[in-house]
Amino acid sequence: MKIICGRSELRAGINRVIKAVPVRTTMSILECILIDASSGVIKLTGNDMELCIETTVEGDILETGAIAVGARFFSDIVSKLSEGDITITADDSMKVEISCGNAKFHIIGKPAIDFTGLPNVEKADSYMLSEFSLKEVIKQTIFAISANESNPIMSGELFDFDQDRLRVIALDGQRIAIRNVDLKKSAGPVKVIVPGKTMNELGKILEDEAEKDVEIFITDKHILFEFGKTSVVSRLIEGEYFKVDRMISSDYNTRAELNKKEFNECIDRASLLVSEKDRTPIIATVSDGMIELKSQSHSGSMVDSVPAVKEGSDLVIGFNPKLVTDAIRVIDDEMITIYFVSSKTPFVIRNDEQTYTYLILPINF
Amino acid sequence: MKIICGRSELRAGINRVIKAVPVRTTMSILECILIDASSGVIKLTGNDMELCIETTVEGDILETGAIAVGARFFSDIVSKLSEGDITITADDSMKVEISCGNAKFHIIGKPAIDFTGLPNVEKADSYMLSEFSLKEVIKQTIFAISANESNPIMSGELFDFDQDRLRVIALDGQRIAIRNVDLKKSAGPVKVIVPGKTMNELGKILEDEAEKDVEIFITDKHILFEFGKTSVVSRLIEGEYFKVDRMISSDYNTRAELNKKEFNECIDRASLLVSEKDRTPIIATVSDGMIELKSQSHSGSMVDSVPAVKEGSDLVIGFNPKLVTDAIRVIDDEMITIYFVSSKTPFVIRNDEQTYTYLILPINF
Repeated sequence: MKIICGRSELRAGINRVIKAVPVRTTMSILECILIDASSGVIKLTGNDMELCIETTVEGDILETGAIAVGARFFSDIVSKLSEGDITITADDSMKVEISCGNAKFHIIGKPAIDFTGLPNVEKADSYMLSEFSLKEVIKQTIFAISANESNPIMSGELFDFDQDRLRVIALDGQRIAIRNVDLKKSAGPVKVIVPGKTMNELGKILEDEAEKDVEIFITDKHILFEFGKTSVVSRLIEGEYFKVDRMISSDYNTRAELNKKEFNECIDRASLLVSEKDRTPIIATVSDGMIELKSQSHSGSMVDSVPAVKEGSDLVIGFNPKLVTDAIRVIDDEMITIYFVSSKTPFVIRNDEQTYTYLILPINF
Repeated sequence: MKIICGRSELRAGINRVIKAVPVRTTMSILECILIDASSGVIKLTGNDMELCIETTVEGDILETGAIAVGARFFSDIVSKLSEGDITITADDSMKVEISCGNAKFHIIGKPAIDFTGLPNVEKADSYMLSEFSLKEVIKQTIFAISANESNPIMSGELFDFDQDRLRVIALDGQRIAIRNVDLKKSAGPVKVIVPGKTMNELGKILEDEAEKDVEIFITDKHILFEFGKTSVVSRLIEGEYFKVDRMISSDYNTRAELNKKEFNECIDRASLLVSEKDRTPIIATVSDGMIELKSQSHSGSMVDSVPAVKEGSDLVIGFNPKLVTDAIRVIDDEMITIYFVSSKTPFVIRNDEQTYTYLILPINF
């Protein structure tokens, strides 16, 4: 194999596929990126057997062939080379030469045949939305998945496709995050659970482009995202997702509308006194014209308040500040509305159009 | 005590004195910042008994007094408060209230009397240079002090004052860094060893101001730096410094002049293959018109070269790349000159004016 690529082009390609390369693995072939120039294009692939990312890079193929190279080292070399054309040569004995200007690196690759490429996903009907929308919807929900892998379903996100919209749901037992986003094209209703890791890595490589689209194909076992020169295939999580609609009540006894930034800064100050570990709550008192926040610990105590338009009865409720700031951080609106039922029941932050709904469990105090 | 300060002013003051507050200590009073409003100005002090930093902040004293407060927590509170006037009140029972807008924090302070303030340093004759020059000279030498504290002298820097210049020297057994800087005022020749920690923290709070000066006072045990509203006092390290002049030869057999940036990038690439731990050297071959670098490890091999104007005999020498990049990173010149004697003897990077001299031990290979 002998190929020549521009450094920026190659580097961008590596940065996309390396997201699927596991940091630690017992199978050394998985630590590799496959460089495949056997079929007229230069393809790079990373695969951890759950998530597989493939992309093509522009360049000249002087000699066809394919080779797998250690991903981290290959990435380090390309990032340290100076701007210009990079030549990569591999011979039958797996010797790889990477050169640019006067600099020449020699490393040993692995046989391409040992590398498992993109799973075969049958491309039937597809769903479509912009790269920007998909990137946003991931950012706006992914924080709510469970870090604890004991329940695999909680470690993924529900993708609930409908005729004209996609609803994405994440939850972890203390909160639920729901976002609705319009589809440009739909293949009809279907629900699948996508691993959190896939969503995280996909979120990193999608661009902020409202003009560029992502096409999504779904089979029994896999979901395929195609955008630009890149294909991302992920295994799906098997099982049935939680009946989230039953958990969210649209009734409320107290409704408070307040400035998001002011509320966020106020929670931030109150958080100084509570540690994630202690699960000490911040106590909010919702009354006419304001929400007052109080917190207390062995270090001291704090009280602060923000103006709020209240409707319904007064209320005192305790909450974990991180759960609230995680949610309001990804809301773009200047003003937010919180719906409370009682001190002991979940409260909900949502907008009238219900493009977003964030449910949070209170803490008893 | 009751004082009112602008938030930015107070925050800047805290950021200066907190550099002297130890992260871990068995004496809880040392974890405090002293707020002293007993003598007409608002003074903040941090002190770890080796390094003491005192600064004044603008503000109104409504009631004189002094209190010590936990440094990290106080700093966190002030940084989370919104922009505006901060009121700090302390009563006889050590209750401290910090308020700004609607936000009120209550914490418990410690008696000011338990706090050890700035050591008394007799201000006789002084030395003077700009804040910028002192900040630069610290940055340009501090990396060469020893991280190993077994030899206290190596953990400090020699400040060698003369009639019109200051020479700063740092070394760690593998390298020597020397910088000369002009003084605006001198109190005559003296040599003192200043702890590395003092230099590091001082470097962080000095400003990049060529127009503002630092005045330096020296006693048997202490060095005092005065600049702006801030005083920094440090203990000196006792003992006699190394006879550095004997270690540096001005003779050479090979002299190479080359572009600093190109050389740095070339070393960077060659470093990919060597780990700090293995102490694998990079091998440089100095010959007519160029320096070629080679490195090799179990991961692979690498060769690269940069143009150089060579004078004298050809030479092959091994070196630890970090020692060279540490030095050339802080040289502002576009071109650098390296002087070699042999493969087994130290080489020196210096300019003709000898404002800087960096000596580095080679590695046998």
